[in-house]
Amino acid sequence: MKAVTVKLPGGAEQLQVVNIEKPVIRDGELLIKVKACAINRTDLMSREGKTGYMKNPVLGIEISGEVVEAAKDTNIKIGTRVMGLVNGGGYAEYAVMPADRAMIIPDNLSYEEAAAIPEVFLTAYQTLFWLGGLTDDNTVLIHAGGSGVGTAAIQLAKQLTKAKIITTAGSQRKLDFCQSLGADVCINYKEQSFEEEVLGATGNKGADVILDFIGASYWEKNLKSINIDGRWVLIGVLGGTVVEKVDIMQIMLKRLQLKGTLLTPRSDEYKRDLTDEFVQRAMPLFLQGKVKPIVDTVFSLEDIQKAHEYMEANKNIGKIIVRIDATE
Amino acid sequence: MKAVTVKLPGGAEQLQVVNIEKPVIRDGELLIKVKACAINRTDLMSREGKTGYMKNPVLGIEISGEVVEAAKDTNIKIGTRVMGLVNGGGYAEYAVMPADRAMIIPDNLSYEEAAAIPEVFLTAYQTLFWLGGLTDDNTVLIHAGGSGVGTAAIQLAKQLTKAKIITTAGSQRKLDFCQSLGADVCINYKEQSFEEEVLGATGNKGADVILDFIGASYWEKNLKSINIDGRWVLIGVLGGTVVEKVDIMQIMLKRLQLKGTLLTPRSDEYKRDLTDEFVQRAMPLFLQGKVKPIVDTVFSLEDIQKAHEYMEANKNIGKIIVRIDATE
Repeated sequence: MKAVTVKLPGGAEQLQVVNIEKPVIRDGELLIKVKACAINRTDLMSREGKTGYMKNPVLGIEISGEVVEAAKDTNIKIGTRVMGLVNGGGYAEYAVMPADRAMIIPDNLSYEEAAAIPEVFLTAYQTLFWLGGLTDDNTVLIHAGGSGVGTAAIQLAKQLTKAKIITTAGSQRKLDFCQSLGADVCINYKEQSFEEEVLGATGNKGADVILDFIGASYWEKNLKSINIDGRWVLIGVLGGTVVEKVDIMQIMLKRLQLKGTLLTPRSDEYKRDLTDEFVQRAMPLFLQGKVKPIVDTVFSLEDIQKAHEYMEANKNIGKIIVRIDATE
Repeated sequence: MKAVTVKLPGGAEQLQVVNIEKPVIRDGELLIKVKACAINRTDLMSREGKTGYMKNPVLGIEISGEVVEAAKDTNIKIGTRVMGLVNGGGYAEYAVMPADRAMIIPDNLSYEEAAAIPEVFLTAYQTLFWLGGLTDDNTVLIHAGGSGVGTAAIQLAKQLTKAKIITTAGSQRKLDFCQSLGADVCINYKEQSFEEEVLGATGNKGADVILDFIGASYWEKNLKSINIDGRWVLIGVLGGTVVEKVDIMQIMLKRLQLKGTLLTPRSDEYKRDLTDEFVQRAMPLFLQGKVKPIVDTVFSLEDIQKAHEYMEANKNIGKIIVRIDATE
């Protein structure tokens, strides 16, 4: 089968489509004929050799496709349309998925749309609710509102809570889109001082939850933007990893909770439990059309280098998808 | 009545015993004839003018004493021996306490011992369980094991969980005492590299929960000492407040939860709920003698300056108590 591996740690030019053996399933697993996979920043880091936890030589952590083989101890039928997280191996014609993590694709969604769901919506759900503890009377500040997780988080916060939603992005086009998804306050971080806008929108209190994809460059501004007892979830470091000076007295006086997270290296049990709760609470919203996967562009497997370069250019709104048509 | 106030923000010499009016109770409150109060670092910060949240001109946040007046809407009898947190005003012959926060003193404890309980045991309970989420299969690293909160935390962790307890202190005398309270691994931070000892005692995994009273000077070492998914509770800054060059990638990769906390500025409701749970789970242990308040020294109200200086010298094991004998 065709699959994408990395020649040497480095840029997009290191990606190659190779022919390898189909993977073999074990107890509790499904073999899936992949119809689409999605690109994630984790994949870029794996390509650069920066994720020690990715053991699978084939990149890709989420897919949609059709079940073609199922271990005896599973109860999903051959032919079922499923989507979900995989432990690597997603950029390929066939991939293995633990059955307890497979989500049945709602009938109204295509495979390309389905592949845009697992990683960003599960991450958004995890960060908003499991780590952020977002409640109806809270305000949430979602940075990078136009990103995959950003667009997912705005929709989930809107549909599952009455919280006030503040978002930041770097263009009017992205901000308009965020507003259409349900953001209440949209801030252009290139033209406005986001911490002043957040304080202004919250009666000088600040946000109760921050989803931070930026890291170092936003540190001081996030510290000013957060309310007492605030939960600050760190899920990306697009703005650098080293903060020059951290005043931990502020963390104590504001009683802040700073929580770093990554979804991919977490345990199978964690992913199963997160998927279960997400399916119960959020999946009906997709069928009702209240929440939608946001697909920016669909590439072919042969254009995998272009797909990575496109993500690195940071112009997408929502997900970058790769369509895969198995030949065998 | 006699009470201790601060002349000007500054050192212990600024403390003065003055004569002021007895406080007046409102709905839901008790008037208590104070028998003993305890010294806390919060009081030192208030004395220095560094706690904007303390509105009461009389210092002191915890007392033990006898109920002499009770609002109609309370159900505690006159004459009851109680202990608990007060919203300032503890260094005085009479103090006001919200009735829903008053804990009845076990018969086997003196007033001096009782005054050594509320702040440090409630803080230890809050940090170990509410913020630290300590479980039986965890390891907890308790810094400043000889301090008030340290001695309380070692005992509560030992009696309420099967967690492995690692503690640090700066003298053999303190470490021996920590061991007698139940600490499994005792590290002299002046002679040993605590992060190496912690890794050695945990199969190189690190501690799941850290109670950090030290802050900046221990930052890097705590980061090395903490396990994946670890909860790092920041409750003091004895080692400084500013950390240079913080690598937040480490917080993300280890999926750390850094939680700053202070008990004193929290709401009345929070203190009531914390007290309720503590009374249910931990108070029986005092009556059974399994957990004991640790009193280092008892001063008289007239020696309040000496009591503060003694805390600043950092030689105490457990609490510094002030006995108060009301004259009227």
